[in-house]
Amino acid sequence: MTIRLHVDADLAEGADVAVSPAQAHYLGSVMRLGPGDPVILFNGRDGEWAARLAEVNRKAARLVVETRLRPQAPEPDVWLLFAPPKGPRLDFVTEKATELGAALLRPVFTRRSVVTRVNEEKMRAHLIEAAEQCERLTVPVLAPPAPLDRALAEWPSDRRLFVLAEHGPSRPLAEALTPGPAGFLVGPEGGFDKTELDALAGLPFAVAVGLGPRILRAETAALAALACWQARHGDWAVGPAFRS
Amino acid sequence: MTIRLHVDADLAEGADVAVSPAQAHYLGSVMRLGPGDPVILFNGRDGEWAARLAEVNRKAARLVVETRLRPQAPEPDVWLLFAPPKGPRLDFVTEKATELGAALLRPVFTRRSVVTRVNEEKMRAHLIEAAEQCERLTVPVLAPPAPLDRALAEWPSDRRLFVLAEHGPSRPLAEALTPGPAGFLVGPEGGFDKTELDALAGLPFAVAVGLGPRILRAETAALAALACWQARHGDWAVGPAFRS
Repeated sequence: MTIRLHVDADLAEGADVAVSPAQAHYLGSVMRLGPGDPVILFNGRDGEWAARLAEVNRKAARLVVETRLRPQAPEPDVWLLFAPPKGPRLDFVTEKATELGAALLRPVFTRRSVVTRVNEEKMRAHLIEAAEQCERLTVPVLAPPAPLDRALAEWPSDRRLFVLAEHGPSRPLAEALTPGPAGFLVGPEGGFDKTELDALAGLPFAVAVGLGPRILRAETAALAALACWQARHGDWAVGPAFRS
Repeated sequence: MTIRLHVDADLAEGADVAVSPAQAHYLGSVMRLGPGDPVILFNGRDGEWAARLAEVNRKAARLVVETRLRPQAPEPDVWLLFAPPKGPRLDFVTEKATELGAALLRPVFTRRSVVTRVNEEKMRAHLIEAAEQCERLTVPVLAPPAPLDRALAEWPSDRRLFVLAEHGPSRPLAEALTPGPAGFLVGPEGGFDKTELDALAGLPFAVAVGLGPRILRAETAALAALACWQARHGDWAVGPAFRS
């Protein structure tokens, strides 16, 4: 398996790309690559490229870009708003939502949230790592963590928001999903409180959906919903990734 | 939230139920419950019951069963065969497959499996814990871990086996899913090898399905597939659990 790295630099044939010190350490010291070894690069804008290491030491590495393997292409338009769960479960949502093709993640804080801040730098590093692993051409956007009411106030009115509801009236997911720009909202472990549910019920773009009779943990609900959306309205009608 | 415990004993009005020493420790020392405190019980056969602690000390506890909250009911008929991933990812599959309503889990060992044995006792404990948490009325069956070829030889011919394929020809999941008894097969991190794929292609009950252009980790694929099956052919048309 050729190593795949996300970089900020522009990518084009013959381009000379310097990677971050952490990436240089990874390539040289951890993976023990040397000059001439192949690496795959993507930046979220220019597609995916074959490159070769030109120089590598402990603190710096330089690659030369060779040929384009895949062009940049539109990706499914689905967002995830979620009350961050604790520790490893947050890492888990971050990784899985990336694999499942979420275009944007936004941590939101609700009345019953236990986790009231998020280490954005750490989360962004996880998003990049997961995107590198799963062969995405983009890294999901990490929207600024915000209180739920602000995130709802900023929600675009032409994007459907499917609220994963544990209680109260809801429609079965498979029946409720519609094509077009979408997002899912997952609450904290203790669920949304009454005032939040009332506010959500009053939003024209929000639809409460149910995920069956078992009580799903928040991260399970998020991933289950993203998977169902991808299968039905996303890019799962396409086969595995092919490189030219 | 009332504590919910899985027990082996028969459950009926007025029954006297002794729990395991570990459960007694949990009730008495961890949760600090005392005589008269309510506990919910289920055993996978007799539905779900309200009970009250009659006696509890460090090593033993006894409960008296009061009224039935939910009758036992048929559950979705979907199985999961999977090459066990390492450490926390195995715990993760165990927990999530339980939440997502898998009726049976069977670890299988393939040519590229890195994990070649499973701690069944630990896995069973996780299944029980997850079933208690997610309000299932059953604990998934843990079928004996086996080499893939034996598990396939033992596969019932009237049950469809959807093979989550990273490579080779496959049908999109949403299009391939059919009603009736089903199972999913997920390979190890390195994928199935050619001889395994050839053997699978020759099985009349097996259908290769694809989960889109991103490379999903094995545990992500398993959970995504179970979620899509539940949404389409399982019990997600039903709302959240209601107690009588």
